[in-house]
Amino acid sequence: MSLQLTILGCHSATPRANAHPTSQYLEINNRHFLIDCGEGTQRQMRKYKVSFAKINHIFISHLHGDHFFGLIGLIATFGILNREKELHVFGPKGIKEVTKLQLKVSKSYVKFDLIFHELTSKKSELIFEDDKVSVTTIPLSHRVYTNGFLFQEKESTKRLHIENVQQYPEIQTCDYHNIKAGKDVVLENGEIIKNEELTLPASKPKSFAFCSDTCYKEDIVPIIKNVDVLYHEATFLSDREDLAKKTKHATALQAAQIAKLAAVNQLIIGHYSSRYKNIELFRKEAAQVFSNVILAEAGKKITV
Amino acid sequence: MSLQLTILGCHSATPRANAHPTSQYLEINNRHFLIDCGEGTQRQMRKYKVSFAKINHIFISHLHGDHFFGLIGLIATFGILNREKELHVFGPKGIKEVTKLQLKVSKSYVKFDLIFHELTSKKSELIFEDDKVSVTTIPLSHRVYTNGFLFQEKESTKRLHIENVQQYPEIQTCDYHNIKAGKDVVLENGEIIKNEELTLPASKPKSFAFCSDTCYKEDIVPIIKNVDVLYHEATFLSDREDLAKKTKHATALQAAQIAKLAAVNQLIIGHYSSRYKNIELFRKEAAQVFSNVILAEAGKKITV
Repeated sequence: MSLQLTILGCHSATPRANAHPTSQYLEINNRHFLIDCGEGTQRQMRKYKVSFAKINHIFISHLHGDHFFGLIGLIATFGILNREKELHVFGPKGIKEVTKLQLKVSKSYVKFDLIFHELTSKKSELIFEDDKVSVTTIPLSHRVYTNGFLFQEKESTKRLHIENVQQYPEIQTCDYHNIKAGKDVVLENGEIIKNEELTLPASKPKSFAFCSDTCYKEDIVPIIKNVDVLYHEATFLSDREDLAKKTKHATALQAAQIAKLAAVNQLIIGHYSSRYKNIELFRKEAAQVFSNVILAEAGKKITV
Repeated sequence: MSLQLTILGCHSATPRANAHPTSQYLEINNRHFLIDCGEGTQRQMRKYKVSFAKINHIFISHLHGDHFFGLIGLIATFGILNREKELHVFGPKGIKEVTKLQLKVSKSYVKFDLIFHELTSKKSELIFEDDKVSVTTIPLSHRVYTNGFLFQEKESTKRLHIENVQQYPEIQTCDYHNIKAGKDVVLENGEIIKNEELTLPASKPKSFAFCSDTCYKEDIVPIIKNVDVLYHEATFLSDREDLAKKTKHATALQAAQIAKLAAVNQLIIGHYSSRYKNIELFRKEAAQVFSNVILAEAGKKITV
């Protein structure tokens, strides 16, 4: 498993007994990211056994309450848990000031380094990169400044063809690094074993795009082209396309149209308005245009 | 029913799957108050069917996160629900600045008047009063500036002794107001019917005292003397009295000692530390000193 997404909350606007605002936990290539953090996210993390200690990076799409009112509570809890590792928070300008003031008035002094990366660009930009993963913003169009995020695995090395390797007792474990890096092996008798014989191709890097909140925006298609999994908000059904337009949200049909244009493998929809009691209607509407669609639901895990 | 308390959350520090931070909903003499507002309070209100519309006054004891991180979400939800009635928030200095900044960065513009009453006094003071109820602060001793709150019904008028009243057909409904105010009735033939014959004594005004968070503090006893219901925090058992002292919290035994000294009718304890898995131990410890004790639990209603 190189990519697993856990839905922590997927409803819009106000929390209700069984409707939690947006938050997702992404494990990709052994990195662990929290995306958005509505009120109650830390409770949902406990409920679905998400490790607090593994998270070092939090990405906030925009500063509407249902996407970040849970951030201060989570940070304060990290403090109570005596966290020492640095924590990086990516989000729109303003997030630093409001978080710092909340920490100050609540006297929640944290011992760890809390590092804010405030976003202001309206163009897609690389905001995080290490040897395993990169994260790029996806400029969205909502009532306030909003970014989606594209998470991509880096190209990995070739994999050992272990059965073939074991044909040559002379090849030792210490040679594996060079083989995975593409080198041939020269045996003691001078025989050259071609790298192609000893390896399998590298697995295709996985990718996940998170797009919420946004109106229908075709500009994002080139950025999210061919991703394995796309989460796209679908606050309304087409019966209220007028309201979607007015509030700068999308319908299930529009989310599916974006998925189709971008030729993604799988679409997840969520951020349902509370006016709809039966969320199955969202799946049905999206499936008219894009068949591999699933509904976000709290606790659901999507594995690639 | 003139006093009913609904426990919305009663655990300390960090929210967990089945442990919600402090919040209580008090109905007293037809007034509706929210006391403290930890993260997730609005979800608990939905779960336990607390009317959002009835609440006009919110009292925040102190600015530790587990007592107020849910306030901004609730206020934003009031905005989404198109509330128009003014909302009064009582709490320590700082609560206005942090709430206003959160509203600003989240662009949660509310149409109603949001009126802050910032508290700074270290003496008990009357902070709310109308014709039905008064609210007085109870200065507590915690790591930060903290107040408890004493909610008292006003003295009510005498009640009609309706069977006796009906002996006199001449007495009309329009006379009831004067009778309840203590006046005698003069019949047309000049006969005087004494007020005592027509009335029953006024029912005893009910009272509730909320004391959290605090260390053991006997100074509060005169303020909460003889209340019907006392909620007193009990974060620890006596096995960790050292830790209670260090963190300025109370033990179950200490809460019971305060209840006994103040001769209250009923004690509720809560704010349990997560280190204790069996909260029944809190009841047992308190009951050694004060028998009429009940455990706070989310969803529990206490009626006087």
